[in-house]
Amino acid sequence: MLRIALVCLALLSVSGSIVAAERPVAPNGIAIYPDYMAWKVIAPSYREDKGHIRIITGNEVAVAALRAGRKPLPDGSVLAKVAWKAEKHPSFPAATEPGAFVQVEFMVKDAKKYKATGGWGFARFVGNDLKPYGKDAGFVGECFGCHLPVADNDYLFTRIVKTP
Amino acid sequence: MLRIALVCLALLSVSGSIVAAERPVAPNGIAIYPDYMAWKVIAPSYREDKGHIRIITGNEVAVAALRAGRKPLPDGSVLAKVAWKAEKHPSFPAATEPGAFVQVEFMVKDAKKYKATGGWGFARFVGNDLKPYGKDAGFVGECFGCHLPVADNDYLFTRIVKTP
Repeated sequence: MLRIALVCLALLSVSGSIVAAERPVAPNGIAIYPDYMAWKVIAPSYREDKGHIRIITGNEVAVAALRAGRKPLPDGSVLAKVAWKAEKHPSFPAATEPGAFVQVEFMVKDAKKYKATGGWGFARFVGNDLKPYGKDAGFVGECFGCHLPVADNDYLFTRIVKTP
Repeated sequence: MLRIALVCLALLSVSGSIVAAERPVAPNGIAIYPDYMAWKVIAPSYREDKGHIRIITGNEVAVAALRAGRKPLPDGSVLAKVAWKAEKHPSFPAATEPGAFVQVEFMVKDAKKYKATGGWGFARFVGNDLKPYGKDAGFVGECFGCHLPVADNDYLFTRIVKTP
């Protein structure tokens, strides 16, 4: 019995990723992208008001487009914004670093499917149980409303970092 | 002539990376690792005192060891700390985001070679011309001195972020 359970567990976890069967799904049908921490960095950010420190990563389509300065981003682009509680480093309080995981948010580009919200599908998964945010699909109004001021940047607050 | 110049340029730039011939080298012989932005994220950080926002990335050896909680890190581990000027987002001042590139720093693990400095070789490359920091190899005393308070964490300030 234990052996069967272990085999099931092995089948369910593929190299640390969450498999499709277990992937939390937002009310608008967007499932979590389990590999967001393996994606390339677009930028770090610090939200003083929320006390969050964040990184924004992107899949290959998104990063290639951003590096090339291509906007609007093409269909298939996915960005992840990962937030942790911002904490003072115990040995070096001038440095603020990540504490507990807060949430991960996604923006998924599909110009046709998400036409009503600038071509972007939104999703947020909160806390260590990655609870999907929003009671129903209407939650995206809140996301899109906040992103409206950056409509001229394809609704993205984040700009990709520059390095020499 | 233009054609030859263009061919030379093409030969010198391999998919956006800096090739060996052009790689800046620190006074202790550590050359810049050109792929640091393609490495996985270890953590973001914010330095209030310096007005920097940063990400720390690591090569595969370093990230695998940190995720497994293995310390000291094995030989071959390399960490990069990339700093940008911290700026208020123009459309959303509660968010601090990266502005101009400041520098990239490396810690390179080789327990034997760098025995005098906790097994770590240090290097810093400053500004858009990636100028190597330090007049001579003695500059590492400054780096190591700053990292001494975190000797019990294999001289690393950064701890890898946790996600569910």
